Amino acid sequence: MADKKIRAQLVGATGYGGLGILELLLSHPNFEVSALVARDDAGRRIDQVYPHLTGRCEMVVQAPDDGLIGRDCDVVIFATPDRVSQQYASDLTSRGVRFIDYSGDFRFTSTDDYARYADRHPSINTADHDTASLLGQNAYGVSELNAEAIANAPMVGNPGCFAIGIILGLAPLYTDGLVADGIVAVDGLTGSSGAGKKPAAIQHFSHLNDNVIPYRVLNHQHVVEAEMSLGRMGAAGGATVDFIPHLLGTTRGILNTMHVTLTKPTPRAAILERYREFFAGHPFVRVLDEPPTLKGTLGSNYIDLSVFTAAGDRRAVVMSSIDNLMKGQSGSAMQNLNIMFGLPQNAGLDRGPLYP
Amino acid sequence: MADKKIRAQLVGATGYGGLGILELLLSHPNFEVSALVARDDAGRRIDQVYPHLTGRCEMVVQAPDDGLIGRDCDVVIFATPDRVSQQYASDLTSRGVRFIDYSGDFRFTSTDDYARYADRHPSINTADHDTASLLGQNAYGVSELNAEAIANAPMVGNPGCFAIGIILGLAPLYTDGLVADGIVAVDGLTGSSGAGKKPAAIQHFSHLNDNVIPYRVLNHQHVVEAEMSLGRMGAAGGATVDFIPHLLGTTRGILNTMHVTLTKPTPRAAILERYREFFAGHPFVRVLDEPPTLKGTLGSNYIDLSVFTAAGDRRAVVMSSIDNLMKGQSGSAMQNLNIMFGLPQNAGLDRGPLYP
Amino acid sequence: MADKKIRAQLVGATGYGGLGILELLLSHPNFEVSALVARDDAGRRIDQVYPHLTGRCEMVVQAPDDGLIGRDCDVVIFATPDRVSQQYASDLTSRGVRFIDYSGDFRFTSTDDYARYADRHPSINTADHDTASLLGQNAYGVSELNAEAIANAPMVGNPGCFAIGIILGLAPLYTDGLVADGIVAVDGLTGSSGAGKKPAAIQHFSHLNDNVIPYRVLNHQHVVEAEMSLGRMGAAGGATVDFIPHLLGTTRGILNTMHVTLTKPTPRAAILERYREFFAGHPFVRVLDEPPTLKGTLGSNYIDLSVFTAAGDRRAVVMSSIDNLMKGQSGSAMQNLNIMFGLPQNAGLDRGPLYP
Amino acid sequence: MADKKIRAQLVGATGYGGLGILELLLSHPNFEVSALVARDDAGRRIDQVYPHLTGRCEMVVQAPDDGLIGRDCDVVIFATPDRVSQQYASDLTSRGVRFIDYSGDFRFTSTDDYARYADRHPSINTADHDTASLLGQNAYGVSELNAEAIANAPMVGNPGCFAIGIILGLAPLYTDGLVADGIVAVDGLTGSSGAGKKPAAIQHFSHLNDNVIPYRVLNHQHVVEAEMSLGRMGAAGGATVDFIPHLLGTTRGILNTMHVTLTKPTPRAAILERYREFFAGHPFVRVLDEPPTLKGTLGSNYIDLSVFTAAGDRRAVVMSSIDNLMKGQSGSAMQNLNIMFGLPQNAGLDRGPLYP
Repeated sequence: MADKKIRAQLVGATGYGGLGILELLLSHPNFEVSALVARDDAGRRIDQVYPHLTGRCEMVVQAPDDGLIGRDCDVVIFATPDRVSQQYASDLTSRGVRFIDYSGDFRFTSTDDYARYADRHPSINTADHDTASLLGQNAYGVSELNAEAIANAPMVGNPGCFAIGIILGLAPLYTDGLVADGIVAVDGLTGSSGAGKKPAAIQHFSHLNDNVIPYRVLNHQHVVEAEMSLGRMGAAGGATVDFIPHLLGTTRGILNTMHVTLTKPTPRAAILERYREFFAGHPFVRVLDEPPTLKGTLGSNYIDLSVFTAAGDRRAVVMSSIDNLMKGQSGSAMQNLNIMFGLPQNAGLDRGPLYP
Repeated sequence: MADKKIRAQLVGATGYGGLGILELLLSHPNFEVSALVARDDAGRRIDQVYPHLTGRCEMVVQAPDDGLIGRDCDVVIFATPDRVSQQYASDLTSRGVRFIDYSGDFRFTSTDDYARYADRHPSINTADHDTASLLGQNAYGVSELNAEAIANAPMVGNPGCFAIGIILGLAPLYTDGLVADGIVAVDGLTGSSGAGKKPAAIQHFSHLNDNVIPYRVLNHQHVVEAEMSLGRMGAAGGATVDFIPHLLGTTRGILNTMHVTLTKPTPRAAILERYREFFAGHPFVRVLDEPPTLKGTLGSNYIDLSVFTAAGDRRAVVMSSIDNLMKGQSGSAMQNLNIMFGLPQNAGLDRGPLYP
Repeated sequence: MADKKIRAQLVGATGYGGLGILELLLSHPNFEVSALVARDDAGRRIDQVYPHLTGRCEMVVQAPDDGLIGRDCDVVIFATPDRVSQQYASDLTSRGVRFIDYSGDFRFTSTDDYARYADRHPSINTADHDTASLLGQNAYGVSELNAEAIANAPMVGNPGCFAIGIILGLAPLYTDGLVADGIVAVDGLTGSSGAGKKPAAIQHFSHLNDNVIPYRVLNHQHVVEAEMSLGRMGAAGGATVDFIPHLLGTTRGILNTMHVTLTKPTPRAAILERYREFFAGHPFVRVLDEPPTLKGTLGSNYIDLSVFTAAGDRRAVVMSSIDNLMKGQSGSAMQNLNIMFGLPQNAGLDRGPLYP
Repeated sequence: MADKKIRAQLVGATGYGGLGILELLLSHPNFEVSALVARDDAGRRIDQVYPHLTGRCEMVVQAPDDGLIGRDCDVVIFATPDRVSQQYASDLTSRGVRFIDYSGDFRFTSTDDYARYADRHPSINTADHDTASLLGQNAYGVSELNAEAIANAPMVGNPGCFAIGIILGLAPLYTDGLVADGIVAVDGLTGSSGAGKKPAAIQHFSHLNDNVIPYRVLNHQHVVEAEMSLGRMGAAGGATVDFIPHLLGTTRGILNTMHVTLTKPTPRAAILERYREFFAGHPFVRVLDEPPTLKGTLGSNYIDLSVFTAAGDRRAVVMSSIDNLMKGQSGSAMQNLNIMFGLPQNAGLDRGPLYP
């Protein structure tokens, strides 16, 4: 019985998100992959799609045909675009199959919240959720903040890659009501892989190499979930995130630098101590004395944080670094799956950053 | 009259090749651009297509409508794919409008030679040249070797980016009959920009960054022109080029490393001296004592060469470095245009490499 | 007489700053280089130090021996560390030789201002200026703001690479008194070349490649000149710059993203219009509708700017992009030299960015 | 008893080689690290030296004081430069402590062989081995070829990073006597990390980024071990390797492209089949139909190989890709340690490449 593995079905298996969780599941002691499902590359072996998997996985990608989604598995992982998991949610919950979704479909627990997100999203054309009646049962998958809800929810909305670095980076300050007017200015620096596998002009090597490209200035959809999460913490009283994403000529990683005015002067040492206390016992949060670096978390599920103060401790700068495909995506999904199935949060995730 | 500028019409103006020659022409003392022609982005200002041109060029891209090609200009530059200039060649020559073409259309002076090339090319479906009768009038645009033909030809076939580095790098050895059996093994290392502007899976940033991707192994079409050129030099008696292109995670530059067995032991010093004599008076060929580096030619029209010997001087290794978009494309085109119009070869081209 | 060239002596010739101005001077129609002076590599030809200069410059680097500095030249360019030009300033001014200096030595026009800078600088051990009596005669070399002073000053302090992008990017807002409390939060993203040629751990390729490294958090010395310049503009009434430099894994370029609260709601369109009016007639400032990109200025002397607003136009984000070795260093120096000698500001500088 | 871990002492712990094996040992089920020894950074915690280790290892680096080397451990790992382990070899063997060494000290089993290597090495000044009497007891650590010797030897010489990719890539061809005159031309493309952690001009980011730098042309010391290994295989009858290393602007990985003339025409399919048979059962060798890519092995212990033929199957091109810090260094060391202690070769090494 100890050997009975949890069967995970992977939908959207051929994108970078699918690849990430596949690789984590392949080396996880408690999970096995029941099926790889995707429209793209259906019928091909996954190691033909990704030659670096040669010798590691020979499963064939299956098209999402009738009845396949949720069949013969304990959990479904949707590494799919927005509005895909919504289509399967009712069916899966009625059959008692839990799922986790990478998109914004189940990050919000009310239709109002979802509508604000959908309005901001560049490729969602309606503010109506297909399975609005399920909202409220779902959990927002920031493992460090919502473990209990995640453990019990039928479905988990995995957080956005920018959002998780902002939320965890600022949670202690918002919780303590230390952010003046709830306003933070965030410059997010991201590698290219968050945009996925599909070739595009902004991701074309000759254009992006050695470049920095600000985009969706003050208009990124991940801000919505960050503002909701932060604004409702402890003494927060609302949050406004002025967010500027910058695309860098590197593959992996997100480093957010975040500027706040403090409601009262607070020394750097006190803030760092509070951060360490706040995140005590959370295996993937590291509070550093030095500024975090992008490569300091590469390939791992860590989030590295540090805080500095200015102007007589009346203003603070927080920096957070994650691997956008790990803590920012598949690593958080794996951590959430561990929580959903009562396993240690770091099962299958205990790997260090790749350096140099 | 001294101020009368040569009017150049640019076809395929919105690709990297078109951009390269546009920028050279804009700062050239003797040329002016009469029109920018392209299917893509027709109707847009070129500085909207390429924002880095803001304040430098506001011309509007025109669609290649009836009669536009060759109208009101002294020369047409086709920065277009294979088999485009062939369609206009008869018309242009009958009207006395000279042209230069970036593709393989006019690199070969016989139908047999062209057919060998077309067979090898990944996107040409026929070995028949559309204007075969003109072959023989054209010149192959390796400026250092064919200046006289280029000066007088109605049309010039600009060389392939890999080919020019191989041909110039080996010309002295083949001319002197020093290459055993005419065989050379070439490993070519190239930046991404040679593949142009169009997004593609192999050019996707997340895939190419930090990668080396060998492709078209022993099967690249540029080999055909290299074998023909080298094989017919002086005492050569034929040439066979075993060529392996490697795509690197960098934007610009081609470095070819070339291995030959010598027909007789020849000391390195003697070979270097011969190279310096062979290329004397050619402003863009630099023969170095040290190995050339990729960045040593970046942004310039130089080709840097060096030679080393092994096995008691019985084998030699030649290395050549160019900027693939300059000496490998638009720089050579500019140099050829200078030759075609009786100007100094380095007019408008006298810029140093960008370093660091 | 028209052909008489201005003779420029270059001190610190073998660093990146020296290299940059050497290359600009070599292709400038009105200047010639009288001597290359440096401690490092003295006695070597400059094209041995920098092989990419092969065929372009064969001058031998001279050690700064007795009496060499300022001899037989019209102007001296100090591309040297802090506190070098101070040692020669009295002698040069007494002999009527003008100079421009890359360090902080002559950026400040009072001993108090200099002392604040020196205190912040990581490698200056005293707040005393060696030639304090000359402060006040010097001009701070932001060409667009101080052209008249630069034209007449015996010595010009070339601005810091971070400072110039901050100052020009915010000048219209501070001049108009639009910045609430004079406070701006700046995240600066920089390539590696600003740190110069000397190998160091933070510049080691294996460490920096694909990395982002925040450093000197809230403590960079360039902030001092930015605060002084901005704080004294028009209606400014002081400036405080919370500045976080981030070292990126790329070679060239600085992109600053700058967050301010506006003293009154001001629509984006109005701000952009004001910026275009403010910088009208300045050939190197480009105000863009889209966000600037790092590579949009590469290798050129341009500074690209754009502005966005948030929160009902109550907050603004300004972005500026420069090539740190051009507008951020040698390009500004060349522009200032043009101003000092009554030449058009863009003489020898009219080159476009290298793209892709 | 099953839980008793093998105690490994790590000398040279603070370089990239030491870091690599430390990280592998930390997550290995059968090993524990008894001590970290290094001259550099002695007295500091290893997670201060390498902040990415925060939360993973807090051991303090110890100086190599009297009697420390070999004390209280089952095996010593020398991740040190040439001629360090030689000094400890007699003492360790006399005490029955086995060791593995990263340098060339114990790659050769005769003084003659060592002398040839030492002559070629850029920083070894004598051809005399300090403990020549031990040569012959040592094993050369190419795990796939010498497992039996490795299992029993008191000391193992871990192979050079270039050498292992050449040797494994060509072993079947040399074994079968298929290489004409035993001559191979190899272009090796390497990331920067093989040169280690110490800042140097050739490794300076601004110089190396976007560059390709050929170095030690036809003169690299790794060639010696490759020639010896290949030349003594089966029907080989000697080997000559014309090797050109090219330093790339990337951190990790070596891709070797190798050109041979075959002694008899041999179809590609037959060669690939032979390769698959030759390496059957070896978990880290993957023979691919497509060319290997640099990133296809990143962070893993795999070596990816493929072969192509030219000229009517009379010539062959072999390509091999490894992570130079894994299969090219610490991964091979771990694999050899597994062999030395009777563990499965892939214990602690079963991780896939990091992609994208």
